[in-house]
Amino acid sequence: MNIYDIAKLAGVSIATVSRVVNNSPNVSERTKQRVLAVMEEHHYTPNVFARGLGLDSMKTIGIVCPDVRDAYVAGLVASLEGRLREYGYDCILYCSGYKKEKKEQAVELILQKRIDALVLAGSTYAGGGLQKKETDYIRQAAAQVPVFVMNGRIDGENIYCVYSSDYQATYETASAMIESGRSKILFLTDSHSYSANKKLEGYEAALRDHGLPVLGSRKLYTKNQVHYVRDILLARKDLDFDSVLATDDGLAVGAVKYAHARRLQIPKDLCIVGYNNSELAVCCEPELSSIDNFAQELCGMVIDEMMGLLREETTPPAHKEVACHLVKRCSTDF
Amino acid sequence: MNIYDIAKLAGVSIATVSRVVNNSPNVSERTKQRVLAVMEEHHYTPNVFARGLGLDSMKTIGIVCPDVRDAYVAGLVASLEGRLREYGYDCILYCSGYKKEKKEQAVELILQKRIDALVLAGSTYAGGGLQKKETDYIRQAAAQVPVFVMNGRIDGENIYCVYSSDYQATYETASAMIESGRSKILFLTDSHSYSANKKLEGYEAALRDHGLPVLGSRKLYTKNQVHYVRDILLARKDLDFDSVLATDDGLAVGAVKYAHARRLQIPKDLCIVGYNNSELAVCCEPELSSIDNFAQELCGMVIDEMMGLLREETTPPAHKEVACHLVKRCSTDF
Repeated sequence: MNIYDIAKLAGVSIATVSRVVNNSPNVSERTKQRVLAVMEEHHYTPNVFARGLGLDSMKTIGIVCPDVRDAYVAGLVASLEGRLREYGYDCILYCSGYKKEKKEQAVELILQKRIDALVLAGSTYAGGGLQKKETDYIRQAAAQVPVFVMNGRIDGENIYCVYSSDYQATYETASAMIESGRSKILFLTDSHSYSANKKLEGYEAALRDHGLPVLGSRKLYTKNQVHYVRDILLARKDLDFDSVLATDDGLAVGAVKYAHARRLQIPKDLCIVGYNNSELAVCCEPELSSIDNFAQELCGMVIDEMMGLLREETTPPAHKEVACHLVKRCSTDF
Repeated sequence: MNIYDIAKLAGVSIATVSRVVNNSPNVSERTKQRVLAVMEEHHYTPNVFARGLGLDSMKTIGIVCPDVRDAYVAGLVASLEGRLREYGYDCILYCSGYKKEKKEQAVELILQKRIDALVLAGSTYAGGGLQKKETDYIRQAAAQVPVFVMNGRIDGENIYCVYSSDYQATYETASAMIESGRSKILFLTDSHSYSANKKLEGYEAALRDHGLPVLGSRKLYTKNQVHYVRDILLARKDLDFDSVLATDDGLAVGAVKYAHARRLQIPKDLCIVGYNNSELAVCCEPELSSIDNFAQELCGMVIDEMMGLLREETTPPAHKEVACHLVKRCSTDF
């Protein structure tokens, strides 16, 4: 029996149950009595979730991220932490890695802390966006505290998702590549996350809409390590491509290194686009065109909405999409 | 009146006071009575520090770092968090920035949490290593919980420092540069931290030991941004150098970009060495020789020693130095 069940049985929202528990004036006497009756009937004590919605707050937010060594993830954590501090909140950080059981364990452990809300900072938590059971652990967490998911879309009560328009970004970029004369775009990725899958969908849709075939041999899943990517591209002589659309800058730099090793000219012989617009994009030579997904803005939005919710002033939208933007540098010619 | 004062007045160590407070059997009855007498005489209640040494532990460690966006700092936080998790401990993360008042404020705020120990993850917290008063805030913190300082050296009771042998590393690298024929080494840095100052000292000592002048015009303090460094090197036509020793890979990549803009060959016309052996070193072209300071090992050591201390099994050394190692790639010819 959790807040989710109580809300359902009483026919009200989680926010309303919270208001009743917190003795907020913004709830009618009739509703209040109905909620209290359901709670009593089911021997429900509000300790578990009350802590999450105002009662006895430690002013602490849990952040679970896969690996803070990843430049994109580090940017998220830094921005979240900074904005939380502005509101006088602390954060407890868990780095979970990318494995399913480790992610579930991290969420389970952090819920044992007195946190007011939980941020899942990375697309990996949303699973591939294909099977609902992949994300059951998040819906269970949301029965205890509000959960904010960054760069993934999960449906469920008390879950609020903010994500980049990755589909749109790769659709537009692949289309621009095709319209500038490329017909063999290699999709390079290291992930089956929600976000990576959206990027793949956008890429495939662009091919189809331009009458080009979608080929398995034009999609490469690899480790995100510069030399590893270079070497695998050198080894895979069966791959035939005139351009690369990568889901992370590190992967794209690997393609740049491959071009150097093969003495291909960039962008003439090989056009390359990275993702996340990180420091790596300006370190490599030539400098990399890269899709910026405005991670810092995403984080500010998440924390602002979270604070509105915790103060019971506003309810965040369940889903919010933020547009990406291609930053053109020297690895593209469109 | 704090644990430091009590220990001094009773003529015992902080660890002994902790044992008395925690009612540990490993303390003689006579010592125990003496400590308790001092505490009573000075109306001292042990709440403040007891939390830090076993009593009522939340199994939570505070980590203060300047900016988790910095690749080196991100590596520290990830390694610390991972090792803490293995011991069943959590971490609260504060990103303080680099300004003195913000650093002091972060330490003050995090001490209000129930943390068992504090890690200052970055050389910036040790000040420049020149004036003692710069680090008084750390000695004050150490009166409440054990403080572990990463990559800086601060003297004080209950303070444990682990740092890289930065002096040795730059001394040896600059010496090798000179012995291979370079005489005009530009020292490129973005910091006056303890670590940056040690690197500078090693560089200057190498010049002196090889009979070369130490010139102000061969030290450049700049922002750590690739294009910014490139542009300032292009603009400063008064600088005359045949090699670069940088205190961070990002700075060194800026020097690489400068060489490209000036059409200088690397390493023939310009020999370049970076620091931290980060991902940036393999992204740039040619790939960067860089000094590796084994940050991950440093972090493991810090947490292991911290756990020994919290379990009252071992007392960590006040100072521990870990050797660095130059990873040679394509930007050097020695």
